Amino acid sequence: MGFSEFNLIERFFVRDNPQRRDVVLGIGDDCALLKVPEGQSLAVSMDTLVEGVHFLHDTAAADVAAKAMAVNLSDLAAIGAEPAWVTLSLSIPKIDLGWLQAFSDSFHEMLNHYVLQVVGGDTTRGPLSITMQAHGFVPSNVALRRSGAKAGDLVCVTGPLGDACLGLKVAQHKLAAPGNLRDYLLGKYYRPKPKVAAGIVLRSRATSAIDVSDGLVADLGHICKASGVGAVITAENIPLSEAAKSVTTEERVLDCALTGGDDYELCFTVAEDDLRNVKAALETVGVPCYPVGRITGKSGVRVTHHGKTLELDRVGFDHFAAA
Amino acid sequence: MGFSEFNLIERFFVRDNPQRRDVVLGIGDDCALLKVPEGQSLAVSMDTLVEGVHFLHDTAAADVAAKAMAVNLSDLAAIGAEPAWVTLSLSIPKIDLGWLQAFSDSFHEMLNHYVLQVVGGDTTRGPLSITMQAHGFVPSNVALRRSGAKAGDLVCVTGPLGDACLGLKVAQHKLAAPGNLRDYLLGKYYRPKPKVAAGIVLRSRATSAIDVSDGLVADLGHICKASGVGAVITAENIPLSEAAKSVTTEERVLDCALTGGDDYELCFTVAEDDLRNVKAALETVGVPCYPVGRITGKSGVRVTHHGKTLELDRVGFDHFAAA
Repeated sequence: MGFSEFNLIERFFVRDNPQRRDVVLGIGDDCALLKVPEGQSLAVSMDTLVEGVHFLHDTAAADVAAKAMAVNLSDLAAIGAEPAWVTLSLSIPKIDLGWLQAFSDSFHEMLNHYVLQVVGGDTTRGPLSITMQAHGFVPSNVALRRSGAKAGDLVCVTGPLGDACLGLKVAQHKLAAPGNLRDYLLGKYYRPKPKVAAGIVLRSRATSAIDVSDGLVADLGHICKASGVGAVITAENIPLSEAAKSVTTEERVLDCALTGGDDYELCFTVAEDDLRNVKAALETVGVPCYPVGRITGKSGVRVTHHGKTLELDRVGFDHFAAA
Repeated sequence: MGFSEFNLIERFFVRDNPQRRDVVLGIGDDCALLKVPEGQSLAVSMDTLVEGVHFLHDTAAADVAAKAMAVNLSDLAAIGAEPAWVTLSLSIPKIDLGWLQAFSDSFHEMLNHYVLQVVGGDTTRGPLSITMQAHGFVPSNVALRRSGAKAGDLVCVTGPLGDACLGLKVAQHKLAAPGNLRDYLLGKYYRPKPKVAAGIVLRSRATSAIDVSDGLVADLGHICKASGVGAVITAENIPLSEAAKSVTTEERVLDCALTGGDDYELCFTVAEDDLRNVKAALETVGVPCYPVGRITGKSGVRVTHHGKTLELDRVGFDHFAAA
């Protein structure tokens, strides 16, 4: 085909997307030049998705782009940052114009939706993988960190857990689901909605936060470790979708919620006295708030189910565990 | 082995490296939180190196790390930015502790040398590839861009060209070289020195700049396209190393210099009247300045050699050309 890297970037990744006023110099030079607004810190997060590891072979290009973007924006949400810019490195085994068109259409749809500008990146020949870095703004003193949880705080989540994990099982043909439930669960797996507005609302209200990417137990475990505390999850309080409960047993959904990952809801802690205010604030951006546990002084994360302690045979998703 | 991604980052990539005061929150949360100094723009550049595409199979881990870092810092140099932070996404096919130790030792050596802090990243299982983003500071009004070259400006480079391309041929066993010359050429290929100090010195002195990654013709071509001008390269003025000239013919070295790439010297333009001052300024940081051509009003890059126009059968390195 004789495509150069430069042409690929020009053809597929430079478009009439939002031209942000904080971008002094965009794609096309050795670097982008960017202005962080006064009084704000820059929040950055980089994530890589590799075909066959983070997404199934033959996943639709549009879904790959949407998921890569969602995963990165979810990290900004978890710290309470407002998204601004992204960089994208795309490795592709060959130049497939249809695939690139679908990938970049989906990518640009996300850019428009979040008023983001792509400011740099790289396209290389190689096994299919996508590395993105998301950049956002948040004043340091109100940023949500993992390290602020205190014994007695309530642990909350912003939406149903376990759907994405069930969606993966559906995609892998390990779980059957009728038409509309199938679409719902696949959508939750392929197109998670990063809780960006919720993160911003939780600034200086939540005592700690993280996004649920590896399952509630593992992610709450990160909060506990960073905060020097422990937690008890009350499993029967975890919100589960009607779709999830109608395709499999409650135990299986709960296992997904606790250890499955990929949901990209926020898990956060609040002082008990603040719960009512936090709920009301989240309602203003249309996001629910479900208390699912409590922070304790004892280290580690325990799970109880109707008063009984649950034994977990694995803790979250670890893609090196099988290596 | 049961290594989790989290442990890999903790074990190999969080060390007693420079703790910069502009890093509010480093590795270990959902995002890093960073402060860009007042009056400065943030310069960012992202590059990916894939095994078998950008570096040979079985390249030493230390060389892979050094090269990935150099390639990214060279982009900062080309815009005149002062390096500050890096993010790193590392895909590895398996956990090889020796490889990781060597890679991270070399990586941290570079961090220390440039007083850089690693502020985020990802480690994933996948075919070996490295994506880095470099972040630096430069006031927007003095940043070096590709777009400022004017007809009549001189084209200069900061050091000998062609060595890296010959080093690659040595590594591929396509070119023989005796011991010390072999080491020199391999070093130029595997361990290019990004011209960071030179880029800072050239702020508001050069009218345009780029780093020579794809060969002088292609890279000067980018300057010409962005500036709406053309250029003539006087091939006999291109600096060639004694090592290069003693392992092969001058024609072969020139071909490498013009179309070979990987040198990571800076190519920049200056008004003729400023040449003496620019040379003196570059001398203060120990960097030479070689005029190798002139900007013209006519589009395109021509090369003359002792008065005759050279025909080029390929223009720079394009890793998709063979796809």
